[in-house]
Parts: sequence; C-alpha cells; structure tokens
Amino acid sequence: MSQRFKLLIEYDGTPFCGWQSQKTGGAVQDALARAVVQFCGEKINIFGAGRTDSGVHAYGQVAHITLTKPTDSTIIQKALNQHLKPLPIAILAVEKVADDFDARFSAVKRHYLYRIITRQAPLVLEANRAWHVPVGLDARTMHDAGQVFIGKHDFTTFRSVKCQAASAEKTIDSLTVTQAGEVIEIRVAARSFLHHQVRSFVGALKLIGEGKWQIEDIKAALAARDRTACPPLAPACGLYLVKVDYP
Amino acid sequence: MSQRFKLLIEYDGTPFCGWQSQKTGGAVQDALARAVVQFCGEKINIFGAGRTDSGVHAYGQVAHITLTKPTDSTIIQKALNQHLKPLPIAILAVEKVADDFDARFSAVKRHYLYRIITRQAPLVLEANRAWHVPVGLDARTMHDAGQVFIGKHDFTTFRSVKCQAASAEKTIDSLTVTQAGEVIEIRVAARSFLHHQVRSFVGALKLIGEGKWQIEDIKAALAARDRTACPPLAPACGLYLVKVDYP
Repeated sequence: MSQRFKLLIEYDGTPFCGWQSQKTGGAVQDALARAVVQFCGEKINIFGAGRTDSGVHAYGQVAHITLTKPTDSTIIQKALNQHLKPLPIAILAVEKVADDFDARFSAVKRHYLYRIITRQAPLVLEANRAWHVPVGLDARTMHDAGQVFIGKHDFTTFRSVKCQAASAEKTIDSLTVTQAGEVIEIRVAARSFLHHQVRSFVGALKLIGEGKWQIEDIKAALAARDRTACPPLAPACGLYLVKVDYP
Repeated sequence: MSQRFKLLIEYDGTPFCGWQSQKTGGAVQDALARAVVQFCGEKINIFGAGRTDSGVHAYGQVAHITLTKPTDSTIIQKALNQHLKPLPIAILAVEKVADDFDARFSAVKRHYLYRIITRQAPLVLEANRAWHVPVGLDARTMHDAGQVFIGKHDFTTFRSVKCQAASAEKTIDSLTVTQAGEVIEIRVAARSFLHHQVRSFVGALKLIGEGKWQIEDIKAALAARDRTACPPLAPACGLYLVKVDYP
C-alpha cells in the first residue's frame, strides 16, 4: 500500500538550473529524484509547489512524493539528506499526508521574499543571496507604489512571455517593502504567481526606489497589459520561496 | 608625502587560510597586498585589527595602509574592489587617517559574533556561515553561564597553546546569547582577545546549552588555568569579526 509524504525543502538555487526537471539532470527536482532512487530504489515523480527559476532559492519549498514500500518519515528525511550531499539541498521536514494532498494544487498561499542590498562595495558574505544595487533606494516609496499590485489584475505586463498559465489574471494578497540599514526586503504573498511575476514587480519597484519611475508609471505599465512595458527583470539570486500554506 | 588610510573590510573567510600573510599567499592580507600592487604599484604592509583564523569571517575588519603617492579615498576603494574580484573580499569604506592611527594598537574594542544553527537538517543557505548543531540548545542558560567570563581573568584555559600573547589576562566587557528560532547568536566584546578565545568560549557554552556542563564546570575550567580543561573548540565557520571601535 502506497503512502504519500510532504517534504519541506531548503535549497541554495545558485548551482541549479531551477526547480523543474531538465534533460541535463541539473534541476533540484532531478537531484531529489536521484536521492530517492539511491535511498529506496523507487523511481518516482517529485511534485513541487513552486517552479523556481535557475538561481532562485528556497527556505520552504514544498513537494510531495508517493512511496510504495512503507517507510518512516524520519528515516526518509535522514536518508535523503545523506544522499543529497554535497548538493546544497536540505530536507527540513517529512510528514505523512493523505493521498489527495497535492503540493501544487492544494496550496492556498505562496510567500516570496526578495532581498536587495544597497551599497557601493560588491557583495561578499551575501554574494548570490541578494541583488546588489550600488545606489540608495527609497524603500517607503517602493512600498507605497507596490500597493498598486494588490488585488486581482491582469498581469500580462509582469509575466514572462514564456509563462504557460492560461490566464494572466492573478490576485496579490500582500506586498511589503521594509528596510534595515542597507538591506531592503520585499515580501509578496498570493495563492499563485505567474512566471517571473515577483522579479518583474521588483524590477519596477527598483526604478521607483531610484526615483526614475513614479507610481503613475507602475499604474500605466499594469494597465498596458503588454510585456514590453515591463522594466528589466530583477536577478534571480535575490529571490526566495519562503513558505507555502495549505488548508 | 605619504598618507595613511583606514580600510573597513568584509570577507567570507571560507577560502582563505586566515587573515595573516602566509608563504602560500592564501591569506586575506596577501590578497589585499596584491590588490594594492595591482592598483598603484606600491608594495606595502597591511596592518589589521584582528588576526582572524582560517575560515573566520569579517563584517568589519579594519586595516591601515600607508601610500606614498597622493590618492583619493573613493578611488582607492573602487580600485581595490575591482582588483580583489573574484575573491570574496570587499572594501566597504576607505578614509584618510592621521599617521599615528594604527588599526591594531589604536583599537579600544573588538566585537565578535558567533552563530549557531540548531536543527536536524544540514545547513544549505547558511553552509559555512554558522556552526551546525543538530540538537536544541538552551540559550538562556548559555547566556547566564557566559557571564562567568565577564571581567578580568587569566584565560589560559580558553586560549590556544600557540597563542603568542605575553599574558593570558584579558578583560571581557560583554557576552550575550540570544535566540531567534533555530539561530543562536553569541556576541562578545573586549579590548582584545587571545588566540582561539571566542571559539573556546563557544565550545564551553555549547556544552552548557546541551546540559552536559553546568555553570560550575565553566567556573572550574576558568580557575584551572589549563588548556586541557577546555572543551572542544567551536568551528571557525560560525565566527565573525563584526566591528572594531577606535577612540
């Protein structure tokens, strides 16, 4: 009798070509699938809550797997962590779930964090962990402008042309911009996101923070429903999938 | 006419064999000396405030250099950062100082931070940035026990046998242990420290946190004035030279 498990996963996205399985085998999903085979011999699919891009990190990606042979959750966690070494992926928790639990479709909210560090000097201890912006940004104005995204909108401007979602309509629940010294943190939550949506938001908010865009420019870009109205995408290294909520 | 400059330096200690110059050229000091030569052709000494060990990080190491040719502080900062790439060393600030400023001997207080992460899963986003302890620690008891170190003591037990200081007497100004979720931070400040002193303190406090040592064991170890009474050293990767104060 098979058993479904929910995995809570942390990873440093730097060396991976994203979450989703690739022919090269260089995705987080591929590494996890190999670890499962090494652990119990079962060739299975790993279903994730968020398809993070290459270079995007996760503090709390969620995935589900279904194993045929009965196995203890703690043993799965320890064994997968052992087989994942030295890759920068850690299984933070494993729990038994009902067969209808789906990491992707059962999720009711996804929380992303985007980190910017504003300073002249290059990043060292935070290299690949934040977007290095060598000028100061006005975080308060960024926060105010970010409220334009709240609610249900057609986000055609703010999604990749490669986005596979049938509709560009999404509902953003919250967006906050906070500052502590040289670190600016942008937190965004929604039931689900379009491809490149958070990085597109951050690209626009950075222009606001620099004073190059005004709040009206954000409104106009959103209303345009045109990808070419989107400012340059913020780099992947600043983005983190922090948490996924389930009912 | 020569000019002395104070450098504020951040580095990821992981790939270096410590601060102090080595024949191999693999020290932070060596990398800085090479960058100065590449920038202005001057072969000079770099004088640092703290001789961090291999693997120890710095958010705010301070050094002084003396250059013969007149140069602007901003240009020095940008040029050194350019020549230091891709090494994980960044010059955060450069300022002109009087000829009698000495990064090491003018310092009145040094601030160290030691980070521990207590969780079962291996560290990923924090790999090489903290000591991974797979069991919970009682931070409050660690804080209380750490107060034993405050004040002037003979710290023979808590220094490396290779420590070159003439006296083992030092005065610890403050030691605090705080906890936020799985992260425990130990902050220690003193005018100066002995070799391996902070890591020796943390090694002892970890035993306290696990309940394997009581406060009386710390007192006895201190009173013993015997290096063999010291628990295993905490690893270098959790230690950060945060700040150095000058009058």
